[in-house]
Amino acid sequence: MSLIVQKFGGTSVGTVERIQAVARRIVSATQAGHSIVAVVSAMGKSTDVLVDMAKQITDMPGPREMDMLLTTGEQVSIALLTMALQAIGQDAVSMTGWQAGITTEDVHMKARIDHIDESPIRQALQEGKVVIVAGFQGVSPSGQITTLGRGGSDTTAVALAAALQADMCEIYTDVDGVYTADPRLVPSARKLTSVSHDEMLELATLGAGVLHPRAVECAKQHRVHLTVRSSFNEEEGTIIKEEPDMEQGLVVSGIAHDKNVAKITVADLPTKVDAMAKLFAILAKEHINVDIIVQSAYEANTMNVSFSVSGDEVKRTLDVLLAHRETLQFGYAVAEEHLAKVSIVGAGMITNPGVAAQMFNCLADTGVEMKMVSTSEIKVSCVIPMAQMEEAVRSLHASFELDAKEAAVVHGVC
Amino acid sequence: MSLIVQKFGGTSVGTVERIQAVARRIVSATQAGHSIVAVVSAMGKSTDVLVDMAKQITDMPGPREMDMLLTTGEQVSIALLTMALQAIGQDAVSMTGWQAGITTEDVHMKARIDHIDESPIRQALQEGKVVIVAGFQGVSPSGQITTLGRGGSDTTAVALAAALQADMCEIYTDVDGVYTADPRLVPSARKLTSVSHDEMLELATLGAGVLHPRAVECAKQHRVHLTVRSSFNEEEGTIIKEEPDMEQGLVVSGIAHDKNVAKITVADLPTKVDAMAKLFAILAKEHINVDIIVQSAYEANTMNVSFSVSGDEVKRTLDVLLAHRETLQFGYAVAEEHLAKVSIVGAGMITNPGVAAQMFNCLADTGVEMKMVSTSEIKVSCVIPMAQMEEAVRSLHASFELDAKEAAVVHGVC
Repeated sequence: MSLIVQKFGGTSVGTVERIQAVARRIVSATQAGHSIVAVVSAMGKSTDVLVDMAKQITDMPGPREMDMLLTTGEQVSIALLTMALQAIGQDAVSMTGWQAGITTEDVHMKARIDHIDESPIRQALQEGKVVIVAGFQGVSPSGQITTLGRGGSDTTAVALAAALQADMCEIYTDVDGVYTADPRLVPSARKLTSVSHDEMLELATLGAGVLHPRAVECAKQHRVHLTVRSSFNEEEGTIIKEEPDMEQGLVVSGIAHDKNVAKITVADLPTKVDAMAKLFAILAKEHINVDIIVQSAYEANTMNVSFSVSGDEVKRTLDVLLAHRETLQFGYAVAEEHLAKVSIVGAGMITNPGVAAQMFNCLADTGVEMKMVSTSEIKVSCVIPMAQMEEAVRSLHASFELDAKEAAVVHGVC
Repeated sequence: MSLIVQKFGGTSVGTVERIQAVARRIVSATQAGHSIVAVVSAMGKSTDVLVDMAKQITDMPGPREMDMLLTTGEQVSIALLTMALQAIGQDAVSMTGWQAGITTEDVHMKARIDHIDESPIRQALQEGKVVIVAGFQGVSPSGQITTLGRGGSDTTAVALAAALQADMCEIYTDVDGVYTADPRLVPSARKLTSVSHDEMLELATLGAGVLHPRAVECAKQHRVHLTVRSSFNEEEGTIIKEEPDMEQGLVVSGIAHDKNVAKITVADLPTKVDAMAKLFAILAKEHINVDIIVQSAYEANTMNVSFSVSGDEVKRTLDVLLAHRETLQFGYAVAEEHLAKVSIVGAGMITNPGVAAQMFNCLADTGVEMKMVSTSEIKVSCVIPMAQMEEAVRSLHASFELDAKEAAVVHGVC
């Protein structure tokens, strides 16, 4: 008998009928002899409804109260799913984040899980119950209700799988696996049977939207066996594991994109040794996630630093920068919005130095303006205008021969 | 500076605009120098929406999961009200039942409050914050989320007022006080400036619908100063206090009614000394609230016992009875539904023995069939067909001269 942690996203529990379908899926797993812990998100658009109500009251709802508000969404889901299980004869119990022993740091709206006391879940499992846990939420040491931020339910599932030493963590979603690109943008995109944690991490960070990067990171760190599959069919999905099958030998395994990107430029910063450190320490302290960083226009005494943030963080980032203008001694800060990021990802890149050049060529041929570039061992990312994103993804997908039915090895151009 | 506990019902926080109005009312109290703890219910019909979803899943949702589901309603309200206060510059903090230290017994859907650890609220008050507490909910010693059942937010408010030794507990609702009868049924009904705890208790138990009986009981026990007033205007409301003003000298101070009543008859019960005790012990253990009890058809060896329960409890009551048929050794159990209860209430009744007779006369004149009768020192109740309830209330209101603008002393008929 194995212990499986299953995670069902908002779409999978979007209606009463879908909740009942999830209950049947869980029961078929228990009937196959498995112990099940299921993590669920809020129903469909219910979080958006709550956010709307808060926005009607104030433009700047306090983060503690937002967490208080939003965590009700998952609490509704766990109660209804548990009822659905009980209605078909499966003993089950629901647990909020604090009841499931999930302790986070004392930060609101984007807390990290500190530790999990798995004894309440273990006890319920020993009593033969399916345990339904509210995703996305926890409790701080001082007893505040906290949330893990966007995609937090994935992290809850992986963290629970790690704490419980589960045999498998299954992420059920509305797509049936990880694709070489977003199939809505690239109709010829193919499903990958397996990817490495690192590739998935890059794909997730870059907005493939299937799995939250923090969850992948956590899975990698704790060696959690992870699968992404559809909650609407019985297909195999994509396995995320340390050693992917080398069947394909692909240099580039997928094209990722991220829609909501903005570029912030901090101009006329003094060229002191600690200027960059100070700048990004201040942003980190304010929990602003910075992605690509480019240092440019280096002169004798001043430099410009550009970095990308989520489009939602632009106003807050500029506010934080202006509040620290005297400390940082910069000239001015400016934001460029309506940008996107496209990336090519693949573990094979390390040994194929021409890949980045092929990407730049492809984008140039397509007439796409590159605003920022960032490279790592297994990815190359370009920030480009939002309006050109779809065309860029399709061109790259074709250029790296990901359209092909049969996998093809892509050769570097130089 | 005094400490006031205010309670706002579902209608008072039914929309975002109303929540903002409640926030302004609270701020005007803090500006007058008071410390405020506000207890809130779920928004308007939101509880009904949640109940509907549960009903779509199963006819018999488990009570633990119902509590898990329904407590989200109040959690939404406290978050939004706290945001509204913060938006107009008032420091405030929301607390769920468990965060506010409200410990209940380990029963679901109708738990009683065991004790309150008031230190989290006291600390927040000392920090100059308004404290917004979720009504209707608590936590059991084993860490389960519990609810207090219908009208539970009133009980939360009074219990908090008692624990905090508040100077006043103000119940804000959609009516502006306690009336001699339901103004929707009797247009000539008058607002009472004050009633005694006991009268209010009878009026509340009998379905006046303004204040939950448990809250009144709790207020009486802990000498909490209680006021019922409208959240939509600035009128004075009705004060509930131990020694009411004797201005009116009324024998009957109000007519109460309760719509959803059923009569259960347990037939051919053995006439043993402990038969009644056994029967009602079993019902109490299952948390079935029994109201009027009538023992009838007393023969040599068997008797019939009839009692009234809420119309919602009929199926469960019959199930419980049948499950214990062997223990209780009765012949059969039968339910009569679609009944109502009308009652006359007044502290002056004790010294006016003809009041019950006047009531029966009035009902007989109106052609109302009496199914059950119950009397106490300050009330007389009759169970009658639901279809005749409104007419009965109006006739009684007129018969006891409650219509009169000027208060009139009602004399007994014999």
